[in-house]
Amino acid sequence: MSYEIKGLNEECGIFGVFGVPEASKLTYFGLHSLQHRGQEGAGIVSSDGEKLYQYRNRGLLAEVFADENDLNRLTGTAAIGHVRYGTSGNNSIANVQPFLFRFHDGDIALAHNGNLTNAQTLKCELEDKGAVFQSTSDTEILIHLIRQKKNLGFIDALKASLNEVKGGFAFLLLRKDCLVAALDPNGFRPMSIGQFDNGAYVVVSETCALDVVGAKFVRDVFPGELVIIDKNGLRIDHYTTDTKLAICSMEYIYFARPDSIIHGVTVHNARKKMGRLLAKEQPAPTADMVIGVPNSSLSAASGYAEEAGLPYEMGLIKNQYIARTFIQPTQELRERGVKMKLSAVRGVVEGKSVVVVDDSIVRGTTSKQLVQLLRDAGAKEVHMRIASPPLKFPCFYGIDMSTRAELMAANHSVADMCKIIGADTLGFLSIPSLITAISVPDAGNAPNGGLTVAYFDGKYPTPLYDYEEGYLKSLKQTQIQEG
Amino acid sequence: MSYEIKGLNEECGIFGVFGVPEASKLTYFGLHSLQHRGQEGAGIVSSDGEKLYQYRNRGLLAEVFADENDLNRLTGTAAIGHVRYGTSGNNSIANVQPFLFRFHDGDIALAHNGNLTNAQTLKCELEDKGAVFQSTSDTEILIHLIRQKKNLGFIDALKASLNEVKGGFAFLLLRKDCLVAALDPNGFRPMSIGQFDNGAYVVVSETCALDVVGAKFVRDVFPGELVIIDKNGLRIDHYTTDTKLAICSMEYIYFARPDSIIHGVTVHNARKKMGRLLAKEQPAPTADMVIGVPNSSLSAASGYAEEAGLPYEMGLIKNQYIARTFIQPTQELRERGVKMKLSAVRGVVEGKSVVVVDDSIVRGTTSKQLVQLLRDAGAKEVHMRIASPPLKFPCFYGIDMSTRAELMAANHSVADMCKIIGADTLGFLSIPSLITAISVPDAGNAPNGGLTVAYFDGKYPTPLYDYEEGYLKSLKQTQIQEG
Amino acid sequence: MSYEIKGLNEECGIFGVFGVPEASKLTYFGLHSLQHRGQEGAGIVSSDGEKLYQYRNRGLLAEVFADENDLNRLTGTAAIGHVRYGTSGNNSIANVQPFLFRFHDGDIALAHNGNLTNAQTLKCELEDKGAVFQSTSDTEILIHLIRQKKNLGFIDALKASLNEVKGGFAFLLLRKDCLVAALDPNGFRPMSIGQFDNGAYVVVSETCALDVVGAKFVRDVFPGELVIIDKNGLRIDHYTTDTKLAICSMEYIYFARPDSIIHGVTVHNARKKMGRLLAKEQPAPTADMVIGVPNSSLSAASGYAEEAGLPYEMGLIKNQYIARTFIQPTQELRERGVKMKLSAVRGVVEGKSVVVVDDSIVRGTTSKQLVQLLRDAGAKEVHMRIASPPLKFPCFYGIDMSTRAELMAANHSVADMCKIIGADTLGFLSIPSLITAISVPDAGNAPNGGLTVAYFDGKYPTPLYDYEEGYLKSLKQTQIQEG
Amino acid sequence: MSYEIKGLNEECGIFGVFGVPEASKLTYFGLHSLQHRGQEGAGIVSSDGEKLYQYRNRGLLAEVFADENDLNRLTGTAAIGHVRYGTSGNNSIANVQPFLFRFHDGDIALAHNGNLTNAQTLKCELEDKGAVFQSTSDTEILIHLIRQKKNLGFIDALKASLNEVKGGFAFLLLRKDCLVAALDPNGFRPMSIGQFDNGAYVVVSETCALDVVGAKFVRDVFPGELVIIDKNGLRIDHYTTDTKLAICSMEYIYFARPDSIIHGVTVHNARKKMGRLLAKEQPAPTADMVIGVPNSSLSAASGYAEEAGLPYEMGLIKNQYIARTFIQPTQELRERGVKMKLSAVRGVVEGKSVVVVDDSIVRGTTSKQLVQLLRDAGAKEVHMRIASPPLKFPCFYGIDMSTRAELMAANHSVADMCKIIGADTLGFLSIPSLITAISVPDAGNAPNGGLTVAYFDGKYPTPLYDYEEGYLKSLKQTQIQEG
Repeated sequence: MSYEIKGLNEECGIFGVFGVPEASKLTYFGLHSLQHRGQEGAGIVSSDGEKLYQYRNRGLLAEVFADENDLNRLTGTAAIGHVRYGTSGNNSIANVQPFLFRFHDGDIALAHNGNLTNAQTLKCELEDKGAVFQSTSDTEILIHLIRQKKNLGFIDALKASLNEVKGGFAFLLLRKDCLVAALDPNGFRPMSIGQFDNGAYVVVSETCALDVVGAKFVRDVFPGELVIIDKNGLRIDHYTTDTKLAICSMEYIYFARPDSIIHGVTVHNARKKMGRLLAKEQPAPTADMVIGVPNSSLSAASGYAEEAGLPYEMGLIKNQYIARTFIQPTQELRERGVKMKLSAVRGVVEGKSVVVVDDSIVRGTTSKQLVQLLRDAGAKEVHMRIASPPLKFPCFYGIDMSTRAELMAANHSVADMCKIIGADTLGFLSIPSLITAISVPDAGNAPNGGLTVAYFDGKYPTPLYDYEEGYLKSLKQTQIQEG
Repeated sequence: MSYEIKGLNEECGIFGVFGVPEASKLTYFGLHSLQHRGQEGAGIVSSDGEKLYQYRNRGLLAEVFADENDLNRLTGTAAIGHVRYGTSGNNSIANVQPFLFRFHDGDIALAHNGNLTNAQTLKCELEDKGAVFQSTSDTEILIHLIRQKKNLGFIDALKASLNEVKGGFAFLLLRKDCLVAALDPNGFRPMSIGQFDNGAYVVVSETCALDVVGAKFVRDVFPGELVIIDKNGLRIDHYTTDTKLAICSMEYIYFARPDSIIHGVTVHNARKKMGRLLAKEQPAPTADMVIGVPNSSLSAASGYAEEAGLPYEMGLIKNQYIARTFIQPTQELRERGVKMKLSAVRGVVEGKSVVVVDDSIVRGTTSKQLVQLLRDAGAKEVHMRIASPPLKFPCFYGIDMSTRAELMAANHSVADMCKIIGADTLGFLSIPSLITAISVPDAGNAPNGGLTVAYFDGKYPTPLYDYEEGYLKSLKQTQIQEG
Repeated sequence: MSYEIKGLNEECGIFGVFGVPEASKLTYFGLHSLQHRGQEGAGIVSSDGEKLYQYRNRGLLAEVFADENDLNRLTGTAAIGHVRYGTSGNNSIANVQPFLFRFHDGDIALAHNGNLTNAQTLKCELEDKGAVFQSTSDTEILIHLIRQKKNLGFIDALKASLNEVKGGFAFLLLRKDCLVAALDPNGFRPMSIGQFDNGAYVVVSETCALDVVGAKFVRDVFPGELVIIDKNGLRIDHYTTDTKLAICSMEYIYFARPDSIIHGVTVHNARKKMGRLLAKEQPAPTADMVIGVPNSSLSAASGYAEEAGLPYEMGLIKNQYIARTFIQPTQELRERGVKMKLSAVRGVVEGKSVVVVDDSIVRGTTSKQLVQLLRDAGAKEVHMRIASPPLKFPCFYGIDMSTRAELMAANHSVADMCKIIGADTLGFLSIPSLITAISVPDAGNAPNGGLTVAYFDGKYPTPLYDYEEGYLKSLKQTQIQEG
Repeated sequence: MSYEIKGLNEECGIFGVFGVPEASKLTYFGLHSLQHRGQEGAGIVSSDGEKLYQYRNRGLLAEVFADENDLNRLTGTAAIGHVRYGTSGNNSIANVQPFLFRFHDGDIALAHNGNLTNAQTLKCELEDKGAVFQSTSDTEILIHLIRQKKNLGFIDALKASLNEVKGGFAFLLLRKDCLVAALDPNGFRPMSIGQFDNGAYVVVSETCALDVVGAKFVRDVFPGELVIIDKNGLRIDHYTTDTKLAICSMEYIYFARPDSIIHGVTVHNARKKMGRLLAKEQPAPTADMVIGVPNSSLSAASGYAEEAGLPYEMGLIKNQYIARTFIQPTQELRERGVKMKLSAVRGVVEGKSVVVVDDSIVRGTTSKQLVQLLRDAGAKEVHMRIASPPLKFPCFYGIDMSTRAELMAANHSVADMCKIIGADTLGFLSIPSLITAISVPDAGNAPNGGLTVAYFDGKYPTPLYDYEEGYLKSLKQTQIQEG
């Protein structure tokens, strides 16, 4: 048995709507605002009350639906959609969601954001019972579990199945006559409910997708909940009450869009406060100005600048056009290629001592190049400030953060890191300040203020199942081989 | 005779290099940083000293060169490249540059940024002499002029031809053994020279393209100059000395990249100063914060905020993914569609009085939607501030700014405009402040500090030739019909 | 429950090889010679002894593998390939074969030529047990059956499964270390074994595929046989001995290539003999010449001419280029469009009395146009002769011959048909003469000389399972509704 | 100066119509029946009386117009179309016809079948006068010549220009209000006029295109004629009376479709008679049967069989599906690859002495493989008979027949050729018998019965201009270098 651990990770955005005209077009607009959550594939399944219709392909949403006819064919008043971040190697079209499964007793479509931690175990068990899988995605497992116990009826079979899968998950299921959403017992991934003026409901990964389609925010989906939407309206059910909020802090730190509101907290505001607390914890007394790494770190940088009483300047420019990465030039050209994403503004940084605020350091290669870029543009001093704690442990709940061996902070002290990246000084935000900056109002008495901070302290809020033995053990032995 | 005036307008970015290995790949990287100057088509012509090789197509650079082989086939140590902004209607592949003309006595490739104001007249004259044109682009005219007087020798024929064409132009010409650049007598369009460590030269539309390829800035190209680069190095020549700098102020206002330096002025710094002067001229006493329209107005907004002593906030988010515009939804969906580009951050603007800084108002439709977006997100007051004077007259020198009938400020007072877009107050920067903010050091005693500000005051620095009779006259009669 | 009967029909060509370098390229060449058996989709799965690799798509083989890299990536020394005839409506890429199923205990690829008559029943039973199907093809059923009884071991599970499926089938299965072929108990579809000089074996739908790859014919696969090829060579096994040869007569009549040899009979020779016997049974005393409908009826026409002592002429020309059928012109143009496939040679038929030999009449529309074409070209008399008996009943074993309601001979007498198509006379071959013309040496004492002639007499050699109730009953009531 | 001679050769089919609804669709159907004349590119230009519309691309007609919208956009009641045979190297889309040239005083479209023998000379002269060419095709020259003398008026300028170009040509020109056809003074290429029931006219390369669109044959176009079609109907004019019919005999031998009638002779009948005369001149006393190489040699083979009193058999099968040629297998596979086009029918030829009739031998490689194919299938004796004289000299009038160095018969005796290809005997038709077999009724007292037979005897009916010095001289020295 040799599943590749990495291949199972997926990050995604999901969108579902029930009871509106041209549901697939609305879904297209909604997915567009969730495109930052996944750029490798996109798809939509619609229902006209009788049949389900599917279109999906690899690529950006606008590439997938480059021919409008492919969208027009998805008729009906209900739809679910998906944008997918796929790690290389399992980038087959068979893995692009939503999945659509056809049965003689009624079709089911499925879209998923998250990562199951017992996927391998369940898959082997199912295959040993005769199951035939069509994708390498762990998402498909849910359908097999449901169908194994179809005699219970759909909703009860779904509830029982949700109690078998472990990890982080936000599922959307579409049948010809209903839309169902389900969130894992820790609420690792965000999911919110909105409503249109006509009363129809919509379920989305982030609230920014509500704004674009003109829906009003109703409430977040909570851990263990099942949201059932049909012609009778919306009903909240539970498949478990053994829940404890532990929302992924990386959503606030860099993954979600700044205008989204997750569990009552505007992401931009959380980031700005991370920047303020960072300025208190990690001042840079000699600095002339603060600059942010566009786009995800601009909020934190402006917070740092305000707190520090320093000017906030535009010292780095991001090229908004994406270059193909295939072009592998000679070594000489490759170093120039690095500059295709970011440019330093010489007229701003020349001769200055600058604080650069970034959201995180993963492998450290980008940070090193960033420092060099600023020095090449004439910066006198470069003080790197990171608006989150050092990343030392991987995420098993749905964000592809690479393995531990690749995480720079897992293997180096802050002092070493500073030296390697070539900065004058380097400082990180502390875990307590991170929790304070976010301050989830819904947290109740959940640990860490309702956040998962395991990426920083290694204390995962759940057992890790498949990863426990095969993976973490190998981490301890530091014998990781990667392709 | 019925050429469509609009169809001749083109905005572009050009890049040329001579004497480096893999010249076409370098050109690819350079064009990538100029992509903001044109997204409708791209192409490269290379020379290996014997033959010229061409590849071009419609679309973004990364789409055009999606198959790396198309780039690899462009062998050689010299190349010119082009990214093109094409108005609809003449978007044929035959109009995508660089053009490559094959002759029994040696091929010539040509790339152009600008607009000729006597193109129609010249084209008719040439056709009447037997010329056969292959594109509807005015760029092709230069080749016909050169070939008509080929007996003079290439450089002298080119010089004579450059004295026949009128308007704004920056030309790059590539032959098997030389690269030539030429700028119009007013220097309407920017063009700069860089140099590699190995001594090879590069000519670019904006200096941001020098940084990405690792070249050092040498000097700007000046009006009337001819830059000839061959195996003997670089030589500056002139085809005319009757010159007067009148660089397009729109390059500073919104078109160029903020990290580019044009005639000694960093674009970001100019914009920031426009924001500062705007804050002085058009204060907003009741405002709580300043926000900018991403991305082009962020520099000016931060300048405004600093001058006004107000917090600079991220109240608007730009979706970095481009949606296909073809999707024409129902009226209901269309208004939502507007929100696909920009989102207001409710958590920032709710209950606040905000100053929104934008770089310009063309038709006013975007401004109106912007104001509505902010009000929908809960903004208490919306004070629109524009970091340039009211746009009243079209550009005939290479920027496609629509016709005068479409320019909101050409037909409405500022008070009317404020009412139409729905803002609480509206204020523009004055022309003198614009000139002060930019302050071109190279200007000498040129009028308007070496800038073209005709878009604001209608005083064009040159005769308008083809546009004089047919076009401007019709403008005065306001009888414009457009398709 | 509402499966569409038509949608399950499939006609195909299959090719499998084990133990040669570049097995996928060999498979490509082999499939090319089987392209006449299916033009809607093509695919290849290869094995390098460790892993299986798949590529498939809709379209002709040369379109599917238009990029040679897609073929090169299919490394290894074993492969199976498939060309598919798909009826409209189920033309999804998910239905293009070979299918590749990945399991934690070893992958299985599958290619199929035929039609299962109990597919709906089996599929419902499997779904009720929890099976999740990924295609609408009945081929996938075999894998589910095998996996349900995987504890038996692969070969025994396969044998047991082959006893559960009914109808006409020729299966190829590829695992990392073996290639298996299986034929139904009546041998409805042809399948032959070949061998290379190096000893490696190949299994093909028709022997014409052996010639193109340079393999020598070994033997045909017989009903009920299982052919297992691995590193130990070839082994013939049986999953049942309750067999009776009833090979599809339509393979000889029009489907197979004339150079193929099926159960010892060269297809061209069988057709020529059909023509000779037709000339005896259905002479045309006033005729000046004999012409055939290209390409499938040329053999029979030359046989008719020889027997009748008439000149064999080229009176009809087939356009070898395929026109898109999408172009739906006005009524006036549509009738011209008919002529795009076939042209009459005026210089041959003008003023002459001609015998036209065709292989069969399905709906009669082509025959009618053919007669008109010849009359327009000046033919004096047109005597239509069909080298097979009247088609009255559909095929349920793998050839998509339309439903009975569409079969002209099912609803009209020969005299009526002659009148409708506008011929001077019309004559068909008798069933006994068809059997005599083919004379399968391997037939033993099987009924009808080892042939299925149910299309002509309605006496199917097996029960029809799913089709028995739902379909044939409806045929009797002549209440067929088709989309 | 170094034009490649080979690159100028082009073979094509042309179709023009004036005065019918949906002219472009009719042109599509007409071109489909001319597809055998060129498979490398296709295009159509239509006129709606005001504007001309163009679409063209590389590939087969059905590939070029795969999207029906591209055809629908070509509105209007007049159109010209072109299918193109392009030699490698100049296969740019810029060379695909019809060409469309836009002028301020009216557009002109142009389609050409033929080859100009003074193209290089004219092109250099024109370039020296300032002309800028957009293609490497010699066709474009005509437009430049016309425009140089545009003051004469269009028809007179065209007439004068037609007297300047030399070689073989059939031109179609479309303007917004007229369609003009012109044929060279020797009528090297066929061109015929047809008429619809509504009186509208059509001009085509071969009469088979009349049948498919439902037009009646009116007359052939004769050497030196100008056919002018406009709203006033059809008018025949002349640009020269110094004419002498010398139609290309290769059209009858292998190029034209068998159902076409050229100057009164049905191509199939001419070929059958070539076969009969070949049987008389080159009998094969020991033969058991006659087989033809499909498809072009089947007519001649049946003629040979009838004359010889031998059975005509189908011993070779042509695969009707075209394989991509890019797939370059190992040497072992390559020899199998040869068999992808043709297959021998073992059941027919095994143990037999066969006469194989082919239309011609160019390089001899195909003949060699053919003989081997038949021997591999068990043929006892192989007697190769060629239904035309030995090909020793290239065509300069429009058929790409390779250079003389590649023509097997230019460098070997018949006895040598027989040995090289491995046949038992080899025999060719004589030139007088070729002329007798065709017997053009329109020939009058023109030499060689109105045919060009220079490919066999080297006596070209015109001076060869560009080819005289540079090319034929080099042939005499047998110093040809090709790429």
